[in-house]
Amino acid sequence: MEQDRTRAIAAAVEDRTGRAVEFLLEADKLKQVERRNRLADNSRREFTAEHSWHFALAALVLADLADDPVDVARVAAIGLVHDIVEIDAGDTFVYDEAAAADKETREREAANRLFSIDDSGPELRALWDEYEAQETAEARFARSLDRFLPLLLNHASGGGSWVEHEISLSAATEVNSAMAPGSSALWDVAQALLADAAQRGLLKS
Amino acid sequence: MEQDRTRAIAAAVEDRTGRAVEFLLEADKLKQVERRNRLADNSRREFTAEHSWHFALAALVLADLADDPVDVARVAAIGLVHDIVEIDAGDTFVYDEAAAADKETREREAANRLFSIDDSGPELRALWDEYEAQETAEARFARSLDRFLPLLLNHASGGGSWVEHEISLSAATEVNSAMAPGSSALWDVAQALLADAAQRGLLKS
Repeated sequence: MEQDRTRAIAAAVEDRTGRAVEFLLEADKLKQVERRNRLADNSRREFTAEHSWHFALAALVLADLADDPVDVARVAAIGLVHDIVEIDAGDTFVYDEAAAADKETREREAANRLFSIDDSGPELRALWDEYEAQETAEARFARSLDRFLPLLLNHASGGGSWVEHEISLSAATEVNSAMAPGSSALWDVAQALLADAAQRGLLKS
Repeated sequence: MEQDRTRAIAAAVEDRTGRAVEFLLEADKLKQVERRNRLADNSRREFTAEHSWHFALAALVLADLADDPVDVARVAAIGLVHDIVEIDAGDTFVYDEAAAADKETREREAANRLFSIDDSGPELRALWDEYEAQETAEARFARSLDRFLPLLLNHASGGGSWVEHEISLSAATEVNSAMAPGSSALWDVAQALLADAAQRGLLKS
C-alpha cells in the first residue's frame, strides 16, 4: 500500500519522523468523517476535519466571549484534537440517545490507539482528556464553541440536520444549553437563533 | 438569503456577535476551496479548510523538528489563518508561474477585506503578515509545514498532483526546498520521498 511505503521511507530517515508521518497519515482520515450538519450555504454535509478547523479558528475569533478568562491557544489546540477519536469511533449525532450509550467507551478505545502512535500522543491525549473532563475554563469554552458552530450552520443553511431529523425546539434547547457554562454571550445568540428557527418551523414545537 | 438572516439575528443580540458571526460564515467558504493535491488515500482532492486543520495539528505534532525554538501556539494559529485569503483569491498552484505573478496583489486585497469584518481581524491579519514576511522562526517553520504536508499527501496518494500535472523532480525540489530554512529534519524526509517518487516515475526526470 502506498501509505505504508511513505511511512517506511520517513522511518528510514529517522524513527521519530516515521512515527509522526504515521500519525499524520492516520489523522488524514478525519477529512472523510461526515457530520450531520451542512455547510452554511447548504451545498453539502460538513467533514469533521473542517469542523475542527472552524472550531480552532472560532477560538481565536470569539475568545473575548468566554465567561472566564481562557488561554486561547489551548482552546484552539483542544479544537484541533477533540474529534480525532471519530476516526475510529465515528461521529455520534448529539440527538441520538442510543448511540450515546456506548459513545464514551468507543471514544476512549479510539483515544488509546490514536494517541499512542506518535511521541506527541501524550500531549494531545491530555488536551482530549481536559475537554472530556470539563473542569477548566478552556474545556468549558471549547464545549461552547463545539455546540455553537453546528447550531450556527444549521440556522444559516435553512434548518440542516434539524429539519432532516425533525428535531424539536425543546431537544435543541437541551442539547445546546451545554454551551451556557462556557459562554453566556454565545448562549444568548444561540437562543435567539433557536427561537427564530422554531417560529419558522425549522424546529418542531 | 438565509445567512443574512442569521447574521442579523446575531447582530440584534449584540453588534460584536453580529460581526463575529459574519466573519465565521464568510470563513465557512474555505471549506469549498479545492486544492491540487489529493487526500492520502487518493479518494478526492483536498479542501483548503482541511489542509489548514492538518497544518495546525502538524504544528503540535512536529514542533520539535523546527530548527529554531518556536512558539507552537503561534505556528498553529498561523496555520489556521494563512490560507483564509483563498476565499477571495483562490488556491494558487505552487507550480503555476503565470498565476504567481499577481498572487501577492490578489491575496493582499483579500486580506484587506476579510480581516476587516470582525474585531479579531487585526490580530488575524498580524499572523498572516508574519507568515508572508518570513522573518520569524514561527513563520519559517510554518512555511516548512505548508510545503511538507502536500508533499506527504502527494507521495502517499501515489503521485497525486505531481502525476496529474507532470511535475519534474527538479521543479518539485525547487518548490519544496522552501521548507529547508524552517526545518532541516522535514527537508531530509521530503528529499527521501522526492527521490523515491522520481525513481518510480511519479516525478519526471
